[in-house]
Amino acid sequence: MLNNLLIIGCGLIGSSILRACSSKKIAKNIFVNEKSKSNIKKLKRLKNNFKIVNDLKTILPKMDFIIICTHMSEYEKIITSINKHLNTKTILTDVGSSKENIIKIFKKKLNKDISWISSHPISGSEVSGPDHGSGLLFKNKWCILIKEKNTDNKKLKILTNFWKRLGSRVLVMDAKKHDMIFSLTSHLPHLIAYNLIKTATDFEKRKNYNLINFSAGGLRDFSRIAASNEIMWRDIFFSNSKNLSQVINLFIQNLKSFKKNIQRKDDKIIIKKLKDAKKVRKKIIKLKQDINRPDFGRG
Amino acid sequence: MLNNLLIIGCGLIGSSILRACSSKKIAKNIFVNEKSKSNIKKLKRLKNNFKIVNDLKTILPKMDFIIICTHMSEYEKIITSINKHLNTKTILTDVGSSKENIIKIFKKKLNKDISWISSHPISGSEVSGPDHGSGLLFKNKWCILIKEKNTDNKKLKILTNFWKRLGSRVLVMDAKKHDMIFSLTSHLPHLIAYNLIKTATDFEKRKNYNLINFSAGGLRDFSRIAASNEIMWRDIFFSNSKNLSQVINLFIQNLKSFKKNIQRKDDKIIIKKLKDAKKVRKKIIKLKQDINRPDFGRG
Repeated sequence: MLNNLLIIGCGLIGSSILRACSSKKIAKNIFVNEKSKSNIKKLKRLKNNFKIVNDLKTILPKMDFIIICTHMSEYEKIITSINKHLNTKTILTDVGSSKENIIKIFKKKLNKDISWISSHPISGSEVSGPDHGSGLLFKNKWCILIKEKNTDNKKLKILTNFWKRLGSRVLVMDAKKHDMIFSLTSHLPHLIAYNLIKTATDFEKRKNYNLINFSAGGLRDFSRIAASNEIMWRDIFFSNSKNLSQVINLFIQNLKSFKKNIQRKDDKIIIKKLKDAKKVRKKIIKLKQDINRPDFGRG
Repeated sequence: MLNNLLIIGCGLIGSSILRACSSKKIAKNIFVNEKSKSNIKKLKRLKNNFKIVNDLKTILPKMDFIIICTHMSEYEKIITSINKHLNTKTILTDVGSSKENIIKIFKKKLNKDISWISSHPISGSEVSGPDHGSGLLFKNKWCILIKEKNTDNKKLKILTNFWKRLGSRVLVMDAKKHDMIFSLTSHLPHLIAYNLIKTATDFEKRKNYNLINFSAGGLRDFSRIAASNEIMWRDIFFSNSKNLSQVINLFIQNLKSFKKNIQRKDDKIIIKKLKDAKKVRKKIIKLKQDINRPDFGRG
């Protein structure tokens, strides 16, 4: 059991960690640092045992474990303000969705004797805020931990156990690989969803049609993830822009080829492409990344 | 109540019509024409009252209502074979997802005294076949009927009532408007989903990464509709290729602009785009095209 745990930023992810750590008794004392007054109000309604702290200076040296769950664009400011109060023994982590850039910030801003091991729990939703949090949010979900050349193996083990206690399946990889993988499996799909909604809006204006009324035929499925938090996704897009640009280019290249196949009525090629996609879906279900229940629409 | 109803092609949609017409007693006699032996086997397990017919010639003149529910690529052959046995009084319709092209086929292949009013029920799933059908498939879903210059208003009224009895909300529009709207709300989203899965597969091969394992971060959402029936979607893509090409171009143009915004870190523009998408999501929920329940993953 940890003695003192500090959560900086307590929205959907932070409050889910708070709930799980409280109910599973992972830490004796949980401290929460949260700027938003509306979030603090929501947090006060929770029945979990924790203390809200504004002044971090005095408590920082005593912390066993600190986890930053704010938007990534706030990391630099936070690191700068907490850096000189940190204890070398403390386990330090964050939950950001893109890694190479934020690790650069850590390296630039942190004292050399302070080590940081970055985490990325693959969990979330299109909703945000502490009222939507859940102690089960991480259960059976991947959590990626970033190992670098100088990563302290003891601390990595403690961090691994922390996420396992929350129910996560932990996987260790380097930042470069992480950012490439998630540029395709998460960042591109979100961008594509946003772009499809933007295209629908543009088309609606141009044609003066009421499109949205007929969104059940496919568009609806994309609109859910396009309702995700805009600060979070701006930060991810900016932070992983190099990899994202690459996969956008690959996507456009493939889309142009699809268009050509359609215009030319390349029967065999199209059928192969569509059948191959179905195989990937089967693999996704086999890997328990989605359920096999067909979707016939709302309700 | 109709006397004699014939369903040609009895997969997901045809068998759902069969179930609803049987349970709601919409027709006294229901005839089913189905080529696939495996589908016939599945149909025979249904407890609904209907007759499977192979030779249509003798029964066609007696039909009050005929509905084609095969893949669109089979329409021409079917129309050619049934044309000379059709009764001018019969209500004739289909459930194809694209309209301008198939109406051209009807005009070319049907005797001049035979009238056809095309239907498009906006319902379905990524699964197909009569075992997945449901008598409630059309409940509260849109069904678009296509009205042309020479459409018989009496027949249109009967067809409207037919779909309303199945629970649909009926809307009448012309083929051109239909094909433009659904190129964006349905055909483009499916193509984009297929293309995203193709891009993921290509990227996986190129980088030798196991991407699919991490598809819960967004990719998963797209894989569901990319598992749809390949014959159906090839037919739709080919049939509505002109409109589809236009919206693909608009989509690519918007995606390139998004990429530029990201590379330049155009903060205000990105935030506006992402916020605007959220508004569309709200509209989709308000119009009851989706439910408001957040999605935290499988289960």
